[in-house]
Amino acid sequence: MQNVKITIQYDGTDFHGWQVQSSLRTVQGELTRVLALLDSRVVTVHGAGRTDAGVHAEGQVASFFLEREFEPRALRDAINGNLDRDVRVFDVEFADDSFNARSSAKLKTYRYHIWTGDVVSPFLRRYVHHHRGQVDVDAMRRAAAQLIGAHDFGAFTVATPEVKQTVRNLMRLDVEPRGESLLIIAAADGFLRYMVRTIVGTLMDVGRGRLSADHVSGLLATRDRADAGPTAPACGLTLVRVDY
Amino acid sequence: MQNVKITIQYDGTDFHGWQVQSSLRTVQGELTRVLALLDSRVVTVHGAGRTDAGVHAEGQVASFFLEREFEPRALRDAINGNLDRDVRVFDVEFADDSFNARSSAKLKTYRYHIWTGDVVSPFLRRYVHHHRGQVDVDAMRRAAAQLIGAHDFGAFTVATPEVKQTVRNLMRLDVEPRGESLLIIAAADGFLRYMVRTIVGTLMDVGRGRLSADHVSGLLATRDRADAGPTAPACGLTLVRVDY
Repeated sequence: MQNVKITIQYDGTDFHGWQVQSSLRTVQGELTRVLALLDSRVVTVHGAGRTDAGVHAEGQVASFFLEREFEPRALRDAINGNLDRDVRVFDVEFADDSFNARSSAKLKTYRYHIWTGDVVSPFLRRYVHHHRGQVDVDAMRRAAAQLIGAHDFGAFTVATPEVKQTVRNLMRLDVEPRGESLLIIAAADGFLRYMVRTIVGTLMDVGRGRLSADHVSGLLATRDRADAGPTAPACGLTLVRVDY
Repeated sequence: MQNVKITIQYDGTDFHGWQVQSSLRTVQGELTRVLALLDSRVVTVHGAGRTDAGVHAEGQVASFFLEREFEPRALRDAINGNLDRDVRVFDVEFADDSFNARSSAKLKTYRYHIWTGDVVSPFLRRYVHHHRGQVDVDAMRRAAAQLIGAHDFGAFTVATPEVKQTVRNLMRLDVEPRGESLLIIAAADGFLRYMVRTIVGTLMDVGRGRLSADHVSGLLATRDRADAGPTAPACGLTLVRVDY
């Protein structure tokens, strides 16, 4: 048995997210289908980030064990040859048996892309959230600075029975204007469900003056989801890379 | 009556080209539908370039007369509000009555995007033609140099009864490698049907060693379509800009 690590890109628009769901098209489901063809058995695919429906990936990582032997490039081409063009394996490496794309991950980096101009290019329409008009970037940066570090992010997620521990270590939260784009880059050891999108929605509320920058640190204390901003739409979010 | 000049972008993937065709979705057809709503009459829309099915535009220009008065930005937003997101009006200007987007055009610039790497990113899949492997860029440039200037491009088009005159003035034909991309930029006073795509297909045959660079000038003399390369796929082609 060979443990295999793959790096994947996908346009999340036409996927119901990463995780297998019966009768819905998901990235994990597509990979599981293709690997069953190649290895003549059911292969369990572990993914670094369980991206939600509509979220994209430039550098998602997955791992799985194969019985059959492949040369890495031949395996990459064999998987791609059986996938639709909105998901591609870019890189295949062999890994130690102890490697698991999910539990071995040290840092995950996401980018949220907001288009602030009047008109969204047709070429960007699937990958940005349109918020027309200027925002107060300095206030957003002051709010972002309060979230950096190890905190209880309970206010920035939905209550899920299987997740008991809501402390995460946010290493980076940058607000970067680039022409008519506003990029929010978030990196952490792990993210709770909807956490990036709720942070983005909250920072946007600060940028629009609906919330004060100081309000944000209070959210870490109260842990009250109702006091945070809305969950920003999935289409603006991309999993950029996973570090091990 | 006000003559209006608009600049448009579209992702050509889901359009049957520019020109109105009954019961098929075209860009001219969509604009005509929307302008009829806004001006309460049938508006004739003139387009600078009649892009084929699947061809994209970053800077297509169209013109039309309107009876109703609009402020330019309000007109832009009103048109966009009635279009799907794969076509957008970027700019609206008022023009002299003598302006016609098609007949007034002085220079049209197209870009053809070939992806030479092993794997096409899902984010580029609609906008590139995949040709895996290296090509001889120097030979392509030597061939391209022979096509510059005013020539009879009869070998690079399809015979169409309504087009008698097949001389065009090709001002620019650049072959530009950029990482795993190979861009071919073509600018002329006008292009015959399939002309850019047949030039690209011919240059690619030169790049692969199927045709010699010297063969290309012979095509201008023989005007024989059968001696040129194949018509490159539509998806790689984008109308970049139109100059007046």
